[in-house]
Amino acid sequence: MKKIITLGEVMLRLSPPGNQRFFQTHSYDVEFGGSEANVGAAMAYWGMHVAHLTAFPDNEIGWAASGQLRKNGIDTQFIAHIPGRMGIYFLENGAMQRSSQVIYDRAGSAFAGFDGKELNWDAIFDGASWFHWSGITPALSKECAELTLTCLKQAKKRGIMVSGDLNYRSNLWKFGKEPHEIMTKLMEYTNVFIAGTRDFKQCLNEDFKNFEQAREMAFDRFENLKYIVKTDRVSHSSSHNSISAVLYEKKKSHSSKTYELTHIVDRVGTGDAFAGGLIYGLLHLKPKEAIEFAMAAGAIKHSVPGDILLCSLQEVQELASGEAVGKIKR
Amino acid sequence: MKKIITLGEVMLRLSPPGNQRFFQTHSYDVEFGGSEANVGAAMAYWGMHVAHLTAFPDNEIGWAASGQLRKNGIDTQFIAHIPGRMGIYFLENGAMQRSSQVIYDRAGSAFAGFDGKELNWDAIFDGASWFHWSGITPALSKECAELTLTCLKQAKKRGIMVSGDLNYRSNLWKFGKEPHEIMTKLMEYTNVFIAGTRDFKQCLNEDFKNFEQAREMAFDRFENLKYIVKTDRVSHSSSHNSISAVLYEKKKSHSSKTYELTHIVDRVGTGDAFAGGLIYGLLHLKPKEAIEFAMAAGAIKHSVPGDILLCSLQEVQELASGEAVGKIKR
Amino acid sequence: MKKIITLGEVMLRLSPPGNQRFFQTHSYDVEFGGSEANVGAAMAYWGMHVAHLTAFPDNEIGWAASGQLRKNGIDTQFIAHIPGRMGIYFLENGAMQRSSQVIYDRAGSAFAGFDGKELNWDAIFDGASWFHWSGITPALSKECAELTLTCLKQAKKRGIMVSGDLNYRSNLWKFGKEPHEIMTKLMEYTNVFIAGTRDFKQCLNEDFKNFEQAREMAFDRFENLKYIVKTDRVSHSSSHNSISAVLYEKKKSHSSKTYELTHIVDRVGTGDAFAGGLIYGLLHLKPKEAIEFAMAAGAIKHSVPGDILLCSLQEVQELASGEAVGKIKR
Amino acid sequence: MKKIITLGEVMLRLSPPGNQRFFQTHSYDVEFGGSEANVGAAMAYWGMHVAHLTAFPDNEIGWAASGQLRKNGIDTQFIAHIPGRMGIYFLENGAMQRSSQVIYDRAGSAFAGFDGKELNWDAIFDGASWFHWSGITPALSKECAELTLTCLKQAKKRGIMVSGDLNYRSNLWKFGKEPHEIMTKLMEYTNVFIAGTRDFKQCLNEDFKNFEQAREMAFDRFENLKYIVKTDRVSHSSSHNSISAVLYEKKKSHSSKTYELTHIVDRVGTGDAFAGGLIYGLLHLKPKEAIEFAMAAGAIKHSVPGDILLCSLQEVQELASGEAVGKIKR
Amino acid sequence: MKKIITLGEVMLRLSPPGNQRFFQTHSYDVEFGGSEANVGAAMAYWGMHVAHLTAFPDNEIGWAASGQLRKNGIDTQFIAHIPGRMGIYFLENGAMQRSSQVIYDRAGSAFAGFDGKELNWDAIFDGASWFHWSGITPALSKECAELTLTCLKQAKKRGIMVSGDLNYRSNLWKFGKEPHEIMTKLMEYTNVFIAGTRDFKQCLNEDFKNFEQAREMAFDRFENLKYIVKTDRVSHSSSHNSISAVLYEKKKSHSSKTYELTHIVDRVGTGDAFAGGLIYGLLHLKPKEAIEFAMAAGAIKHSVPGDILLCSLQEVQELASGEAVGKIKR
Amino acid sequence: MKKIITLGEVMLRLSPPGNQRFFQTHSYDVEFGGSEANVGAAMAYWGMHVAHLTAFPDNEIGWAASGQLRKNGIDTQFIAHIPGRMGIYFLENGAMQRSSQVIYDRAGSAFAGFDGKELNWDAIFDGASWFHWSGITPALSKECAELTLTCLKQAKKRGIMVSGDLNYRSNLWKFGKEPHEIMTKLMEYTNVFIAGTRDFKQCLNEDFKNFEQAREMAFDRFENLKYIVKTDRVSHSSSHNSISAVLYEKKKSHSSKTYELTHIVDRVGTGDAFAGGLIYGLLHLKPKEAIEFAMAAGAIKHSVPGDILLCSLQEVQELASGEAVGKIKR
Repeated sequence: MKKIITLGEVMLRLSPPGNQRFFQTHSYDVEFGGSEANVGAAMAYWGMHVAHLTAFPDNEIGWAASGQLRKNGIDTQFIAHIPGRMGIYFLENGAMQRSSQVIYDRAGSAFAGFDGKELNWDAIFDGASWFHWSGITPALSKECAELTLTCLKQAKKRGIMVSGDLNYRSNLWKFGKEPHEIMTKLMEYTNVFIAGTRDFKQCLNEDFKNFEQAREMAFDRFENLKYIVKTDRVSHSSSHNSISAVLYEKKKSHSSKTYELTHIVDRVGTGDAFAGGLIYGLLHLKPKEAIEFAMAAGAIKHSVPGDILLCSLQEVQELASGEAVGKIKR
Repeated sequence: MKKIITLGEVMLRLSPPGNQRFFQTHSYDVEFGGSEANVGAAMAYWGMHVAHLTAFPDNEIGWAASGQLRKNGIDTQFIAHIPGRMGIYFLENGAMQRSSQVIYDRAGSAFAGFDGKELNWDAIFDGASWFHWSGITPALSKECAELTLTCLKQAKKRGIMVSGDLNYRSNLWKFGKEPHEIMTKLMEYTNVFIAGTRDFKQCLNEDFKNFEQAREMAFDRFENLKYIVKTDRVSHSSSHNSISAVLYEKKKSHSSKTYELTHIVDRVGTGDAFAGGLIYGLLHLKPKEAIEFAMAAGAIKHSVPGDILLCSLQEVQELASGEAVGKIKR
Repeated sequence: MKKIITLGEVMLRLSPPGNQRFFQTHSYDVEFGGSEANVGAAMAYWGMHVAHLTAFPDNEIGWAASGQLRKNGIDTQFIAHIPGRMGIYFLENGAMQRSSQVIYDRAGSAFAGFDGKELNWDAIFDGASWFHWSGITPALSKECAELTLTCLKQAKKRGIMVSGDLNYRSNLWKFGKEPHEIMTKLMEYTNVFIAGTRDFKQCLNEDFKNFEQAREMAFDRFENLKYIVKTDRVSHSSSHNSISAVLYEKKKSHSSKTYELTHIVDRVGTGDAFAGGLIYGLLHLKPKEAIEFAMAAGAIKHSVPGDILLCSLQEVQELASGEAVGKIKR
Repeated sequence: MKKIITLGEVMLRLSPPGNQRFFQTHSYDVEFGGSEANVGAAMAYWGMHVAHLTAFPDNEIGWAASGQLRKNGIDTQFIAHIPGRMGIYFLENGAMQRSSQVIYDRAGSAFAGFDGKELNWDAIFDGASWFHWSGITPALSKECAELTLTCLKQAKKRGIMVSGDLNYRSNLWKFGKEPHEIMTKLMEYTNVFIAGTRDFKQCLNEDFKNFEQAREMAFDRFENLKYIVKTDRVSHSSSHNSISAVLYEKKKSHSSKTYELTHIVDRVGTGDAFAGGLIYGLLHLKPKEAIEFAMAAGAIKHSVPGDILLCSLQEVQELASGEAVGKIKR
Repeated sequence: MKKIITLGEVMLRLSPPGNQRFFQTHSYDVEFGGSEANVGAAMAYWGMHVAHLTAFPDNEIGWAASGQLRKNGIDTQFIAHIPGRMGIYFLENGAMQRSSQVIYDRAGSAFAGFDGKELNWDAIFDGASWFHWSGITPALSKECAELTLTCLKQAKKRGIMVSGDLNYRSNLWKFGKEPHEIMTKLMEYTNVFIAGTRDFKQCLNEDFKNFEQAREMAFDRFENLKYIVKTDRVSHSSSHNSISAVLYEKKKSHSSKTYELTHIVDRVGTGDAFAGGLIYGLLHLKPKEAIEFAMAAGAIKHSVPGDILLCSLQEVQELASGEAVGKIKR
Repeated sequence: MKKIITLGEVMLRLSPPGNQRFFQTHSYDVEFGGSEANVGAAMAYWGMHVAHLTAFPDNEIGWAASGQLRKNGIDTQFIAHIPGRMGIYFLENGAMQRSSQVIYDRAGSAFAGFDGKELNWDAIFDGASWFHWSGITPALSKECAELTLTCLKQAKKRGIMVSGDLNYRSNLWKFGKEPHEIMTKLMEYTNVFIAGTRDFKQCLNEDFKNFEQAREMAFDRFENLKYIVKTDRVSHSSSHNSISAVLYEKKKSHSSKTYELTHIVDRVGTGDAFAGGLIYGLLHLKPKEAIEFAMAAGAIKHSVPGDILLCSLQEVQELASGEAVGKIKR
């Protein structure tokens, strides 16, 4: 059983039930999610040992968040409970031609002020095979940017593989430092990038003609870089998307099949499910199989409510291998 | 901010949750809706001043109805609370090849007996730009037919634009007068007809070969008439429709694009959302833009539960202008 | 009003609401269903007199089961309440590329130990026109296999038509006797088989090249056999299937049209709705009409939550005759 | 198994969930109930054969009503489905010092126009031991008053015991005839009155000093009268009542114990549960036991949501006999 | 119809359903509430014209908040929609010996940063009879303290009565100024104090032996002061409290009766309902009647879910006058 | 942080919502619970390290059960997932004079067939301070009885304190061995008995005049016995109980105060909460404080839905120390 370490904020997610709009709801469904923990939870459901690093408020809402991660199989022993508020995001599920809407209410959260000074790095990384981070974390605060860097250094020290979902969100970067300086440094410690053209432009503060050019630059510039992964999504409507992905090695590439996703149940966390599938795949499979496994994981997440992929290895493998889907299994 | 006046009954809508049938439900979801108030509520959500004229029973159910209209931004100061019952309609949402079903239980409602004698017309129409009525109201009772006519005369006296959704429902007309006599008179005061061939035949008690012929007759006969609007809908199933519309001026016409509406959430009130969009469009936009705006409003309503379009101006405009839909907006 | 007798276990069905997975649910929706009672309930909703034979535990869960059958119009006077547990099945509704999942928990149920010794056959079959059984019942236990045979003999004695949904489920057969010996004997008393190639292979423990060969064998070997009915289903996903059926007489066959079933609400019981439609059709219609009626019943069931088709004769007939669907009926 | 006949309207009951007020609810819980059917349903749960006479609209709401009665064990074969609307009552559950509120919306119901001309009296009363009516039915319409009288004559012709819950509701009597003339005639056919002083005053249009005087008058005047039953209730709050009852024979009386009812769940139908217990008791027990059984039935109904007592004979007997209550039964 | 002005923050209230704890909930019930708006809403339900002053975020959550106030009858035309987040409070309903718990998450809200510079005081106070504030508002921020003072000056300028619920909450005061300096100044403009001994101590930063002493000091020191009102509550458990109140004039006092509140539904907002009743009473009734009316309003609020008293004038009057409670009103 | 080991079956608990009866429910609320795990979970919420030993089916229902225990803070690493079904219990919550009802459906569960042969005792008991068992486990099967004995021997070998909730349930003992022989042997390894007179009679198959006599016998006969704890409960109704407890040492006893428990929310698991409090108390407090802490834990559990006490140490301590209850904590 491989051990994976993930780092990042986990928020309280509040969604109107069904297709209701914010204006009309009388209750919110409760989930907990955050990009990196979602990545980990997908793998925990497959039996891997996943320890997540984060901080929650030291109150009942924060305890509920930890409890939910534990239910999802995540090792929560390194999670801090400290003063501060719970980060929240309000999610309205789109339908048909109407887009989904997210209202973030995460400023001033316990995690944003978390410096991780008391983390026991030896215990955390003992036996670990992989570390995963995303571009959301360094954007939150100076403390979070430094904590990310510390993690990456600790991972590197131990020769552990590192993946980063660059996921540049310009509206999050509020503190002084130039984002691209921070991002560039973090990328130097990273072996697998999940990124598109826009991410490369913004993280590096450079202009690229196209993905091709960005990709070549990246393989040239970042010597630890082993894989770049790019996903493509066409949104016909909130209820119907098409997705596919490509895994690039320096010299070759592996394309997944394309999935037609009609009747979408929950789009949130589908990229994280993909990333979880990718890490699993790179740890256990050949590159071509890995990208197919990852894409199947991302595709089937669209059918599961909540942030987290709750599908067995077997379900993902059957979909990846093209076995019959949509039957009643008895 | 334009002021709009609407007139009509608002009913208590009772629907089994989700896809349940009447036979199996153990609870009813509560909404309030009525064609003309739905038209107004769409515009109130866009920031217009909409005053609705109706009557509710003077009990807690009636107060809840007023309260809900107020929540939806409608000016309820002219609504009467009088003895009588609340009109009800039971709605079973169809799915797939199964049709939606409506059971009306509106006979003897407070509104059906409402004569509006105490309404203060100067206060109501002060600053108003538009009056909207539908063919449902005069069908309900002699009092309602007379009240509609009174409104139209008051509107005309003040030179206010009038739209009428002819919407002829033969099973509603129960009282003595010949429907077509009443309807013809009401149409004379109306500047915009929303109508199809069948509506023209029944409202005028004449036979027409086709819509073309009916339309020509109408422009000839009704001198106040400025626009005729016709919508077309193809029902592939309860879950999948295609819709489009045409706006006719006397000498030219403007066609909207066609929307493929898969994964329909709630079909009720989509024509009313269209009418709300049309009035908004005719007040603020050129005819071609107006019909596109109206059709986008009608299309996106299919994704919103309840009778009423709760979508921002921006959402409707983005859809009308063909901007990317179905994304997650953060 | 024709009288129909059905025999079989009815289970408590527990489903997570909406699209939730077993792992995440906090409540289960309650339905009651079983293949043969589902067949009967479809017909009871059409006004036929359907008496179901089964046994429930003599406790409140069992009384609720009887009560629910009564609500659905089934004559429950011959149902026994005896010691034992309630058979349960847990159903997770699939969506998109994710399959539905059933976990059976039916071992040791009251019905599995039911010998029917005290049933009053004259009262049961008084005035009856049809008896229906399925291959699930004899698979449950020695007692159930014998009870099925007894019923068939009683039906034959009275010259009543018999249909059997062969529906071979190899994982159910746990007791000593060879399944095919039992099934063969039961088939001898049966006038209508609902079966595919796999069913014929397993019920007769013979190998057939194709359905054609199996069908010919069956008409040769079973002298009481009058019709064979085969349904075909293509599962594009859990949300989209295509279905059609063929009714074979010895010398000719009648094919139904094919239905595209997108936006599936509940797949369970669709074969039973088809069988109910088939029996109704063979009792009231010509063969070609019968298979169309049956297929329409099966198709429209996909839109109704729960095990049971709750659609009026008129709704099924309209669909079978290709009348407009997906409208709002007022 | 005794057979009981009951007559009366059954309405759709719509209640806001929990303690919500009409003004704030977003859904209504659905029950079906009516005084006389409630009386019958209590007994049906105890295994008696109860046939109810009523009329429902011939639509899905009406079919759901019949279905629910069947679930509750009532013989619905004599129920008519005819044109008209479903009678409705809206119920807001009180709590603490806040009263429960009922808004009736029953005018123009199918039952109010039901004349019962096609009822087969021989089939209905075949084997019957008891007929029960209440003062609500004759108040609804001329047709209902006549139908009640017809039933009473049919019952008398066959020497069947008759109970009447006089339950005079002055706001219901809308049609021409003098209520007391009708009521007096109906009382002449009745063997058991459930009534208080106010009921006697209004049904007979006479003034009585006290219950004593009314009771003596009644025994003198109505020669078929065998028992008078009076219940007493003290409402400390909506959540806490105290109740007791007395059964009067001409020459002696039998008092029940008094129940302290704290933590009331649903007050509606508690008088009907009492009446059901009374009929059961008078058919199977001695007078003193009968009044205790009836009072226990009425008391325990306060703990059951909905109009209907769903408690086993054993539960009622245990409470009546003072056995330990409030344990967990395993 | 009197016009009342209220000022204060309105928060999104999120509560686990029923008796669930934060740790176990899977959804939150949504209400909107804040002390001063609750006071106003109680009066709006009685038909008074209540305009509330506050600020909400300019997003869908903020629009829903405005909409809900409108539904409750509040005039929202002066409410600002500005950048910032929605203040939130999480409420866990206590039961039995377990206390209710509130987790505030209101820092950084739109209202806390609201300076009200663009408010049109003449329009706001046109025709107004009363202004109400509470000690919560000045505690939130410097801007809020200044806005409160501005309001008081505007009210004084127009000779309008002012009530203040002193409600000192030490954990809210975070900004520089000494709280008691601010509070003392605000109290000088106030005609009615709702306060207990602890409030006086903290607002004035003085020590008092007992309420008597504090009260005397207050009448001496604050020349505009006309009434002091004190409520007393004994909490036997979360489900059972006893409450009463006294209204003090300078020379005499008026005590209300004491209410035993068993079976409490929702304790939140009961003090606000009392304050609403008090203002109504002082505007329409004699002092003794006013305090009885106020206490009845406060008492009956315990039976209504949510922050707001939704009870008619008649319901409050009946309780105040001791009329029978806990009946079913038909 | 003390480490506690518990052993026992955990069942799926299915309850109709609110006060509904089995006969009328349309959904079941899902909880997981079992006496010994409930004991452990109470302590896990207080921050102790609790490892539970049990077996679940190797399917999604079983995984959900493990997940829920993890959420509740229990160390699930030693839990086996093996073939078999999930034990179920159906719980109907009583109210007022109506008792709660439990229908067990646990025969043939995975746990009943679990022999624990592969458990790693050194890992399990490493660092443990306490082992807890109950009389339910040995009653389930021969395998379970042997597994209990093995645990006790392992605990004894390591000098760990052992508590046993004797909880004799005669209807569970179905297998050959004499119950009292098994129980007597298990009691010999146990340091703390939770038991009443009836438990002693049945576990030892002896007759005792009273508890006094049984207690004396026990202290004489069982040399490892250090404490006997007895709880007393008076059930005024399902909604109102009174409880107290006594802790006996050989030579002295400590009585808790008595709690009046009105407005009971959920009675199930209150004895387990008490036992959890007792173990916590005996590990951290003096005997008199321990019994008060335990009784407070048992009392406050009545306010928490589900099987498990979810109350902080502070909440229990405040109740035990008599601090104010029923306030709103902000």
